Amino acid sequence: MKNFDFFNPVKIYFGKEQISQLEAELCSYNKIMLIYGQGSIKTNGVYRQIKETLKDRIIVEFQGVEPNPVYETLMKAVELARRENVDFLLAAGGGSVIDGTKFIAAAIKYNSGDPWNIVVKNEKISDALKFATVLTLSATGSEMNNGAVITRKSCNEKLAFSSPLLFPVFSILDPETMYSLPNSQIANGIVDAFVHVTEQYLTFPMNAAVQDAWAVSLLNVLKTEGPKVLQNRNDYDANSNLMWAACMALNGLLSAGVYTDWSTHMIGHEITALYGIDHAKTLAIVLPGVLTVMKEDKREKLIHYANNVWNIFSDNDEKVISQAIDKTEDFFVSLGIGVRLSDYNIPENAIDIICRKLEEKKYIRLGEKRNINPEIVKQVLTLRK
Amino acid sequence: MKNFDFFNPVKIYFGKEQISQLEAELCSYNKIMLIYGQGSIKTNGVYRQIKETLKDRIIVEFQGVEPNPVYETLMKAVELARRENVDFLLAAGGGSVIDGTKFIAAAIKYNSGDPWNIVVKNEKISDALKFATVLTLSATGSEMNNGAVITRKSCNEKLAFSSPLLFPVFSILDPETMYSLPNSQIANGIVDAFVHVTEQYLTFPMNAAVQDAWAVSLLNVLKTEGPKVLQNRNDYDANSNLMWAACMALNGLLSAGVYTDWSTHMIGHEITALYGIDHAKTLAIVLPGVLTVMKEDKREKLIHYANNVWNIFSDNDEKVISQAIDKTEDFFVSLGIGVRLSDYNIPENAIDIICRKLEEKKYIRLGEKRNINPEIVKQVLTLRK
Repeated sequence: MKNFDFFNPVKIYFGKEQISQLEAELCSYNKIMLIYGQGSIKTNGVYRQIKETLKDRIIVEFQGVEPNPVYETLMKAVELARRENVDFLLAAGGGSVIDGTKFIAAAIKYNSGDPWNIVVKNEKISDALKFATVLTLSATGSEMNNGAVITRKSCNEKLAFSSPLLFPVFSILDPETMYSLPNSQIANGIVDAFVHVTEQYLTFPMNAAVQDAWAVSLLNVLKTEGPKVLQNRNDYDANSNLMWAACMALNGLLSAGVYTDWSTHMIGHEITALYGIDHAKTLAIVLPGVLTVMKEDKREKLIHYANNVWNIFSDNDEKVISQAIDKTEDFFVSLGIGVRLSDYNIPENAIDIICRKLEEKKYIRLGEKRNINPEIVKQVLTLRK
Repeated sequence: MKNFDFFNPVKIYFGKEQISQLEAELCSYNKIMLIYGQGSIKTNGVYRQIKETLKDRIIVEFQGVEPNPVYETLMKAVELARRENVDFLLAAGGGSVIDGTKFIAAAIKYNSGDPWNIVVKNEKISDALKFATVLTLSATGSEMNNGAVITRKSCNEKLAFSSPLLFPVFSILDPETMYSLPNSQIANGIVDAFVHVTEQYLTFPMNAAVQDAWAVSLLNVLKTEGPKVLQNRNDYDANSNLMWAACMALNGLLSAGVYTDWSTHMIGHEITALYGIDHAKTLAIVLPGVLTVMKEDKREKLIHYANNVWNIFSDNDEKVISQAIDKTEDFFVSLGIGVRLSDYNIPENAIDIICRKLEEKKYIRLGEKRNINPEIVKQVLTLRK
């Protein structure tokens, strides 16, 4: 195991009617900005619950953070928050709304030029407005970490950034808020969380016994509970398990003491930035390709994965590995997710465009061994046509 | 899954030479009190490393916190800390030193009479001195939680207390500090952590899939890595896995959303208070008895445990359960731990004395269903003669 620091101060309120905790948690703030997406919180009861709980508090609203939140929209929220002099942000939504709120929290306090620098240069910030979240869609784990991904439309960029100042003060996870989501969003969430786990686990052995076993646990929970949610959308326990698994998948516990491989996410971000494909769907396209092309580097972990997640055993390692990758792909397909570029009508020349984009940027040495270069990305995507 | 709050703000520095983090972490404090035990930190290099790192900082030392830290000793540390006007406490040792430091941190700021009230009445405290830990013995998990257990010799009491104000600011876990520990302390640590997990897991099913799978993971890691540490005391990875598993075993993750059964600890505390037996050894005595007497209430989880930790499968549930309990006992014995009252020459009338002590106190309704009364404790201990 390698040395690591672990720190995660996010307070979690989990369960039914936990939105009522807002009243006590926010009593010391003067003016709260409620940030949300396209308006689904108005149909699923979350908006009503928030307003009822905060009845006599001054709330400024910002509606309209889109999936893959864009800089241009978020800067409007920054302007509004500054004009209204809000002192706390409350994100109500899924990972996009929460990621967007992290950018807003940082940008409000940024006085050194264009806040896009925080994203494009991952510039260290010295201050951020405090914020909390009411999660309504399990997927990204953003509710319990300090990272975010922001898109800038004008330059087709989708980039990740993080800061120790960008942990939510608290996050409220009420599984009942997921009942009314479209199936496609539930499926996306399952895939996103699943791939978060594989990217921290499917690397090379570091003798990190707890981290490996916990990763396997989360994959098995997602594999078992995810389909239950899709089959019975109001299954409280299944929704709870999905929500908690996705939250635990990216809060720092799995990456503690090990090397990680975020290449699937990085390649996926390029596909979304260029072609607007749902984030999770890009992961479902890319992951099987990365595992196949990098199978020598990942050999031992892939066998561990095959044994412990898919119950595949054989003396023939090659067979074990390829079956495990097939099972992964089948699982995504079973959730209704296309796993090929062609499933989304992405043109063939996309592969070269994506590789060029990666080359133009710092992402030319991806993977746990920093050996996934654009040439290898090309091999990966060619397998996924 | 039931509703829960989760909050754990302890920063962890894990790995080799992480003690050097003290310099930056403590730079804003004026006078630090270093609290340690019987002096083993002077032979294992920890004391030297701390002093080297904090070379120009004013340090007050308090040596002599004993295993099962006693109120009488800790009050001397409180006096010293007040007299010297220290503004930060640094615990260097195992769970006893850390638990003792939590009491000191609370007692220093307590102005409403005898600080024993904090323990005996679990009185809510409104302030505590900040503190951190350098862990040198994995067992209790105290390095990443806000609870402690304190003994008062004059009344043979050993009691637990906790407060949201008693999380360490940070904890340093360097697995190399465990190399020089006596085998018996390593073995005790394995058993203590193992029982922490079973007490949060071996109850009744709550459909908490992540928590159950993570509990099973930790038990398997302790079962596998614990003996490796005893066989090769300088195996860095095995020590790391043991250290991290014990830390994760009692930081709030496993108990989130489920009912817990701390009866083994509560009964064990009485045995230690009366007869001075090592804490972990009392758990090894009591746990198999609790599991046997309460096997109807715990049936489904015991079968899950048998299947997933001991790989025992059969159509005969009774056999599965009794074999799993036997395996648990065998595991403790394999670590060199006696599992019977008679192994420690505890007289037979101890059983009645312990039951009377429990009756005198609030602990008359233990267990996840609050149905373990002194009569059942008697059955448990009678099985463990």
